[in-house]
Amino acid sequence: MRSQNRPGDVRAQLPASAPEQQESYAQILEDVERIIVPGLTHWQSPNFFAYFPANISAASVFGELMSAGFGVQGMLWTTSPACTELETHMLDWMREALGLPEHFDSSGEGGGVIQDSASSATLCAMLAARERTTRGVSNAQGLFGGAPLVAYGTAHAHSSLEKAVRICGVGSEYLRLVEVDAQLAMRPDDLNRRICEDRDAGLRPFFVNAVVGTTSTNAIDPLPEVSRVCAEHGLWLHVDAAMSGIAALCPEFRGIHEGLEGADSYTVNAHKWMLTNFDCNLFWVRSRAALTGALGLLPEYLNNRASASGEVIDYRDWQIPLGRRFRALKLWFVLRRFGLQGLQTMVRDHVALARDFSSWVTDHADFEVSAEAPLNLVCFRHVDGDDFNRRLLETLNDAGQIYLTHTKIDGTMILRMSIGAASTTREHVERAWSIIQSTAAAIQAEGT
Amino acid sequence: MRSQNRPGDVRAQLPASAPEQQESYAQILEDVERIIVPGLTHWQSPNFFAYFPANISAASVFGELMSAGFGVQGMLWTTSPACTELETHMLDWMREALGLPEHFDSSGEGGGVIQDSASSATLCAMLAARERTTRGVSNAQGLFGGAPLVAYGTAHAHSSLEKAVRICGVGSEYLRLVEVDAQLAMRPDDLNRRICEDRDAGLRPFFVNAVVGTTSTNAIDPLPEVSRVCAEHGLWLHVDAAMSGIAALCPEFRGIHEGLEGADSYTVNAHKWMLTNFDCNLFWVRSRAALTGALGLLPEYLNNRASASGEVIDYRDWQIPLGRRFRALKLWFVLRRFGLQGLQTMVRDHVALARDFSSWVTDHADFEVSAEAPLNLVCFRHVDGDDFNRRLLETLNDAGQIYLTHTKIDGTMILRMSIGAASTTREHVERAWSIIQSTAAAIQAEGT
Repeated sequence: MRSQNRPGDVRAQLPASAPEQQESYAQILEDVERIIVPGLTHWQSPNFFAYFPANISAASVFGELMSAGFGVQGMLWTTSPACTELETHMLDWMREALGLPEHFDSSGEGGGVIQDSASSATLCAMLAARERTTRGVSNAQGLFGGAPLVAYGTAHAHSSLEKAVRICGVGSEYLRLVEVDAQLAMRPDDLNRRICEDRDAGLRPFFVNAVVGTTSTNAIDPLPEVSRVCAEHGLWLHVDAAMSGIAALCPEFRGIHEGLEGADSYTVNAHKWMLTNFDCNLFWVRSRAALTGALGLLPEYLNNRASASGEVIDYRDWQIPLGRRFRALKLWFVLRRFGLQGLQTMVRDHVALARDFSSWVTDHADFEVSAEAPLNLVCFRHVDGDDFNRRLLETLNDAGQIYLTHTKIDGTMILRMSIGAASTTREHVERAWSIIQSTAAAIQAEGT
Repeated sequence: MRSQNRPGDVRAQLPASAPEQQESYAQILEDVERIIVPGLTHWQSPNFFAYFPANISAASVFGELMSAGFGVQGMLWTTSPACTELETHMLDWMREALGLPEHFDSSGEGGGVIQDSASSATLCAMLAARERTTRGVSNAQGLFGGAPLVAYGTAHAHSSLEKAVRICGVGSEYLRLVEVDAQLAMRPDDLNRRICEDRDAGLRPFFVNAVVGTTSTNAIDPLPEVSRVCAEHGLWLHVDAAMSGIAALCPEFRGIHEGLEGADSYTVNAHKWMLTNFDCNLFWVRSRAALTGALGLLPEYLNNRASASGEVIDYRDWQIPLGRRFRALKLWFVLRRFGLQGLQTMVRDHVALARDFSSWVTDHADFEVSAEAPLNLVCFRHVDGDDFNRRLLETLNDAGQIYLTHTKIDGTMILRMSIGAASTTREHVERAWSIIQSTAAAIQAEGT
């Protein structure tokens, strides 16, 4: 499960220099098996319950293979029109499939794009917001001399939010950590209070990051109220549903997106819980112009008739890098090979397993559920305290039969059971629960 | 060659919504052939002479396939030790193979990482420089209130330089375009003069971007003199050799890197001219600590024993996104399957073809070479002026037998012949030259 390698194990087996002469595939593959495989943590194992799902499928791998074989560059429409157009189309398909607001559709002023990760999507959203608020001044003259810009999110937002405020020159101190309620969701009243305070202090509030399914515990910020606050103050609302948004493929889970009509941008990962290889982050904006206004540049060596005509999308102006792979292909393959019904079935199965696991934990005297489990993540702990839970986690992961990770809530150590591998069935979850119980019992027995 | 699609051709053939039911591979593959392939511009064709090489190989595609199949995440050492360690090792192999300075080796305080693109590498270098110059203040408090930071490069640097100064909050106006000499290379005296002026004006010079092989014309900035200026003023020197640096695999071309001892960071693309699928940018820094100081963050849900021990590299702290694919695998496959000698032969062949092409142009009364051709790119033009050259280019690309792109030097239209596809042989270059001559003659005949 989790690789049992120690630091340096892989490098110790590799020659110091690149070979002068060519080698055979047989030699290379032998080394893959001998050196590489033991150094892998098996994210595709049915017993992987760590971090977040990063599930894949044969259809996606096939799409990735074909994309690699074509070897085209998608930086401009003209450098491979199919690469751009299939991507725009897939983002429209996904908008509809997830029931997202129409203002994200490419038929209007919005549209979607594939990014490498939600981190990059959040950064791009923030840059678009920065340019909108400063009316282009920050791209031209930088942030020097202007009143500080201020961003808002909760302490439970993904770390990429703080990374983005640093990268774009705003700085961690101008990221306000809004208070949360008992469910660890953003308190809109506190958001409003902080924005008013900052505005009164002469600062420039510009960006709110709301989360649908926090990394730690799957908490969901109240979008209807948050978007009202954003609208009142004219702030850019970015919604990060990286891990959990895929649940909206099923109509019965679409409540997680209630209030999304007020969002300026939204992001979710097909590469987490939708059988599509990393990287395949999906990112939509309400205004294409706001995004390309922040990220667009046209050097002469990229100038071409199609771009000049204004009739096409050049995705290089929607992202940080210039070059881009043909990632829409694997998404197309996945959507067609499984159909929406196939993907819905997978999501429903994982959520049902998580709910069962949650009920088993609740029913056990020595364990407790630590946060509501709306979807496929269960946060739980043994009642014997932090040290016990830390030891339990390390013992489980060192044994290598299953793999779990942890988080902290208010300083308390919490175990995370994330259910989403493609091959995980009820048997695997039952077995995991059995291993967790017996390992805990064994540690308790040792201690007495 | 260049896809002859018109805007909307691909989308017009796709259904409006994702399928509810699963479809067969036969249906999907039929659509690939019918809808996608005509919409591709064939970067792997031996007749592709546009933009830059993005050549691939079976070994690389195989590596990409295996990486997709493993489906592991390389964000932390612990999430798949082999992914991190093979990457560090490959960057050390490549440092030695390219003859780069030892201060970039991971055995000391430096080290290398795979980025998606040179754009991202340049941005990461600039962020490290920004943090070093502001002593961490910009990550903490942003750029507000501080004296403006100033970056330097020439007008011939890649557009990603300006994109980076915008993203990181410095702004285009604080990117100084240093004057160039007759070869379009940076003038160190002008660099020094501008730094002194800016410093005297109370600004904070912090970053110099030197280029080995500009995108437009393959010009090479004089690293020995530029690095002396940087050292004198304490500026971060980043060297962008994205397209051309791979030539240094051959000892006889290593002169392009003379003076690199003074660089703080360096980047080159294995995904351009080294048979490795995009994305596989190689990026080295002199100080790992400077980079991770700028980009590192440790949320509790990513905390783990290996990271806490300080014995391992966590590459998430070396890049913008959090997640990462196992890209070192394809690089390993390429290096072993071809051996350094195989790669050197390819580079030598392409350079020799470019030199021959350049001599044919020189010998022709109606054409002229527009810039020195040190490696595999030849900039040339027909003597009949900009309109003629524009028409020549469009006629060539519309016919679809070969594909070239252009640039402008001092406002003059220049054609670019970039030789680097894996399958390009002497015959293809001879045929291209023949087509260019006959097309030009036909346009002249029409005009008379």
